[in-house]
Amino acid sequence: MALTQMALDSLDFDATVALATTVAPHVDILEIGTPCIKHNGIKLLETLRAKFPNNKILVDLKTMDAGFYEAEPFYKAGADICTVLGCADIGTIKGVIDVANKYGKKAQVDLINVADKKARTQEVAKLGAHIIGVHTGLDQQAAGQTPFADLGLVASLGLGVDISVAGGVKAGTTAQVRDAGATIIVAGAAIYGAADPAASAAEITAIAHAA
Amino acid sequence: MALTQMALDSLDFDATVALATTVAPHVDILEIGTPCIKHNGIKLLETLRAKFPNNKILVDLKTMDAGFYEAEPFYKAGADICTVLGCADIGTIKGVIDVANKYGKKAQVDLINVADKKARTQEVAKLGAHIIGVHTGLDQQAAGQTPFADLGLVASLGLGVDISVAGGVKAGTTAQVRDAGATIIVAGAAIYGAADPAASAAEITAIAHAA
Repeated sequence: MALTQMALDSLDFDATVALATTVAPHVDILEIGTPCIKHNGIKLLETLRAKFPNNKILVDLKTMDAGFYEAEPFYKAGADICTVLGCADIGTIKGVIDVANKYGKKAQVDLINVADKKARTQEVAKLGAHIIGVHTGLDQQAAGQTPFADLGLVASLGLGVDISVAGGVKAGTTAQVRDAGATIIVAGAAIYGAADPAASAAEITAIAHAA
Repeated sequence: MALTQMALDSLDFDATVALATTVAPHVDILEIGTPCIKHNGIKLLETLRAKFPNNKILVDLKTMDAGFYEAEPFYKAGADICTVLGCADIGTIKGVIDVANKYGKKAQVDLINVADKKARTQEVAKLGAHIIGVHTGLDQQAAGQTPFADLGLVASLGLGVDISVAGGVKAGTTAQVRDAGATIIVAGAAIYGAADPAASAAEITAIAHAA
């Protein structure tokens, strides 16, 4: 059993709200993607928070510095999860974990491009990170990479933290990702690129929630 | 001779515009800080672009993925420089350089938390990066670090690219940073924390422009 998360990767404010409206009943978590939050600012979070009380919301801040300062207003505005880069200084990661705890919310450490994923995962889990994000970026996917090997590595550590997996997951690979230990499964293009995004989201969620 | 850059680190839209109005005549480049752009979105860039035609504007995107896609709208809206993380995948860095070139603008690679700064600097300079950002983050400054050693390393490579230095620079250290090879000197707290921010900006710029 894993939760599903829909990545809202558009830049347009209204298109993002419209897509969220279509898929919100069929996924657990709505994700405001990094380009989307930089483009639209916190007002988009406030809008989604008000419109979708039944979904968790993740803001993919990918924070690299000033952890506490940058993330605090987003938790305050209703984000359930914010992300911080695993590549960041450990003080930055601690800042986001601290401010998540202050608001009773969660911090996700994104392993994108981290060189020693095992060491960093163990370090941030010890520090209290709530979620480890196994993440093959869009530019890495374009170069043919997938998140499966990294998921196996992180799951094998048995740290008892949530594990989120992002990077080209689709209906056909959801069961594999779930069974490999993911507790949050992120889909983006597989949903918004589908002829029927709501049906695609429902299909992926049904597989994620099973077993 | 170096240019000066003022880091706008507030989250508040109106306070940011007000501070920019005070310091714009006294610095070369206005920087929209990372927390500030995530909070306010591209509308802040559009506002500053319209109000300050005589300043260059840097948007500190600290891009980590989807380089071309994330940075393009900011260049389109008038940013002269966008930043991409040196920790990012090389495809992401290339994406920001490519889109900067598409608009006749500049891409800055931020060395914050890069493990092998020498190798990465040589690699991205070869790729066409316009500016190398030597950057001691706020969380690293709080732990007592400074950018001086890294500046010496990057300047010694003699790559013929611009070198921007950020990390607690103030009037008392501006000459040292300039003489060590910085071509862009960033000040934040030294200006906005001063009793007279305009006078502080003018003082730092006078030193940066000298020699």
